[in-house]
Amino acid sequence: MKPVHFAPGPSELYFTVEDHLRLGLRQAVPSLSHRSKEFERIVERVSVGLRQLLELPDNFHIAFTASATEIWERSIQNLVAAQSTHYVNGSFSAKYAEIASQLGRNTEVTRVSEGHAFHQPTRHHAELIALTHNETSTGVALPLEFIHGFRTLNPNTLVIVDAVSSLPFPQFDFSKIDSAFFSVQKCFGLPPGLGVWIFNDRCLDKSNQMKKSGHRIGSYHSLPSLHQFALKNQTPETPNTLAIWLLAGVVEDFLRKGIQTIRRETEYKAAILYQALDQHPLVKPFVLENQWRSKTVIVAQTGDHTQRLSEHLAGRGLLAGDGYGPGKGNQLRFANFPTHSKEQYEWLVDSILDFKG
Amino acid sequence: MKPVHFAPGPSELYFTVEDHLRLGLRQAVPSLSHRSKEFERIVERVSVGLRQLLELPDNFHIAFTASATEIWERSIQNLVAAQSTHYVNGSFSAKYAEIASQLGRNTEVTRVSEGHAFHQPTRHHAELIALTHNETSTGVALPLEFIHGFRTLNPNTLVIVDAVSSLPFPQFDFSKIDSAFFSVQKCFGLPPGLGVWIFNDRCLDKSNQMKKSGHRIGSYHSLPSLHQFALKNQTPETPNTLAIWLLAGVVEDFLRKGIQTIRRETEYKAAILYQALDQHPLVKPFVLENQWRSKTVIVAQTGDHTQRLSEHLAGRGLLAGDGYGPGKGNQLRFANFPTHSKEQYEWLVDSILDFKG
Repeated sequence: MKPVHFAPGPSELYFTVEDHLRLGLRQAVPSLSHRSKEFERIVERVSVGLRQLLELPDNFHIAFTASATEIWERSIQNLVAAQSTHYVNGSFSAKYAEIASQLGRNTEVTRVSEGHAFHQPTRHHAELIALTHNETSTGVALPLEFIHGFRTLNPNTLVIVDAVSSLPFPQFDFSKIDSAFFSVQKCFGLPPGLGVWIFNDRCLDKSNQMKKSGHRIGSYHSLPSLHQFALKNQTPETPNTLAIWLLAGVVEDFLRKGIQTIRRETEYKAAILYQALDQHPLVKPFVLENQWRSKTVIVAQTGDHTQRLSEHLAGRGLLAGDGYGPGKGNQLRFANFPTHSKEQYEWLVDSILDFKG
Repeated sequence: MKPVHFAPGPSELYFTVEDHLRLGLRQAVPSLSHRSKEFERIVERVSVGLRQLLELPDNFHIAFTASATEIWERSIQNLVAAQSTHYVNGSFSAKYAEIASQLGRNTEVTRVSEGHAFHQPTRHHAELIALTHNETSTGVALPLEFIHGFRTLNPNTLVIVDAVSSLPFPQFDFSKIDSAFFSVQKCFGLPPGLGVWIFNDRCLDKSNQMKKSGHRIGSYHSLPSLHQFALKNQTPETPNTLAIWLLAGVVEDFLRKGIQTIRRETEYKAAILYQALDQHPLVKPFVLENQWRSKTVIVAQTGDHTQRLSEHLAGRGLLAGDGYGPGKGNQLRFANFPTHSKEQYEWLVDSILDFKG
């Protein structure tokens, strides 16, 4: 049996990806000009599909970058003239703040320790509130009420949500946020090399206004440039066309399966894994507070048992992800993405329960 | 018979790419962590292979971006505090200059009309001299003596060469330039979504010095950041790992074939196509000056015959590229990349000669 990758991205490919790849090669997708009608139709499929999958309102737009890391940079460059505020509870939320700081912005940080989330949304003077819905390093997800709570307190501030390793699972209320983004190698189960940036008209206005007042918002990948091409179902540069083709296919597969089914299965798989970790005498969930436990990236505190458990699982064809940063060597991470089937999760749970140290 | 794409990129895949793709899927390359030893070995294969293929000196380094367009932006951001100078003879050299201008740099431009190159290198006061070796829009290649002539006149100025649609064909003297770059969907025959940036220690010094004096050189893809990760055979962000895997395979295929053979075949194919265009009663080469004629992108001035010739060729399975910008509708472009075989080129030439209007 082929081993199953549970590292939280790049992870296991979504099970239809190889078929889409074969079809794409037969149709010579890699040789398509990114200015051709054929390519525009592929971009349109992604756009139509994602709008439906995520229930995006009309005032939201979609653009492609090379990675979510690029969106960290471009969002600061295009939405922040002076100050951004960041909620940091792990390595990836910290990197977003670090990029803002490298770009010379005044960067306000609200920090809690790893494994924790935040209690209350507050008022801020910054131009952008940056929230990481799912901290891939620690398996903490911010409750949606927390994320949605910023709007009323900060009506004139943009709210951006890094949902790299959670979308399409969370059902955001897009009237309460201005932007969200993800990368395709997480829940969408694609090879890496594409970031998807969702933003509303308020973001565009802010970026245009910054440009007008002489701020440098970048060049080909400034938000207005990305948007101008997106309106034509194009991209400013020759993009990763094959990834866009694969995304079109997988989004349509997700729609056929139904987002409610995907969410229900995600909940089920998360529940049985957390239950197994809660019950286990030797290991436990890293995130103690139930309401903060991520459904898409589940982190086990494995301490001295880390290597042996990892080997025990690998012996059964289950490849756990290593802990990240401070968690390396004493934690294991398990992606719970749409590609991971209920059967694979049941086998994972049984295998963890069988582990005697 | 499958039709052959002659558009100058994305073009026909190199004929080994599908095999490398199948092997990559079997080895689960898309699921590899970009921090794993396995991935580092793939990056190392690219690096070792390209050094050999291009005969790079030790003081040159290699980094990956998402596109050559990104390298236009990053090179200005990292190598130019105030002024760059650009030699512009077509749409792509013009876009490079435009990006410098969008980033707020004082941009000096030496311009000649489309189909022409420049006569003499000159002295400049700028910090960076930007040359486009192969203008993909018009099929003009700058002679190597012209490119190499800037160093003696401008010993303290960086020279960067956009070789997007020509490398690995041109044999640059790397003691006369500081940087070169290409994208993989041209001569390397890969799906698009990866730029390769080659730069020397002088570029790194300049970028570090700019950072020290308070200039903003970007964040994760600043030159020092790219270099720091490249030293470990890594990348700052999760990159297009599949493209890097494919590039490793194709570079090794090129080495097995031998760069001299690739160059000789390129010369042969270019010679027979230019000869056919020179002889033809209805069409002619767009570039009149022999020494400026690109070997890798050959542009035909097809005037009123454009659509009929394009259809005539398509009927024989030969898909010509449209003219670009002002050439659209009155020119056709033909990529002459390593993937285009001598037999395909002979068939193309015969088919053009058969065209009676």
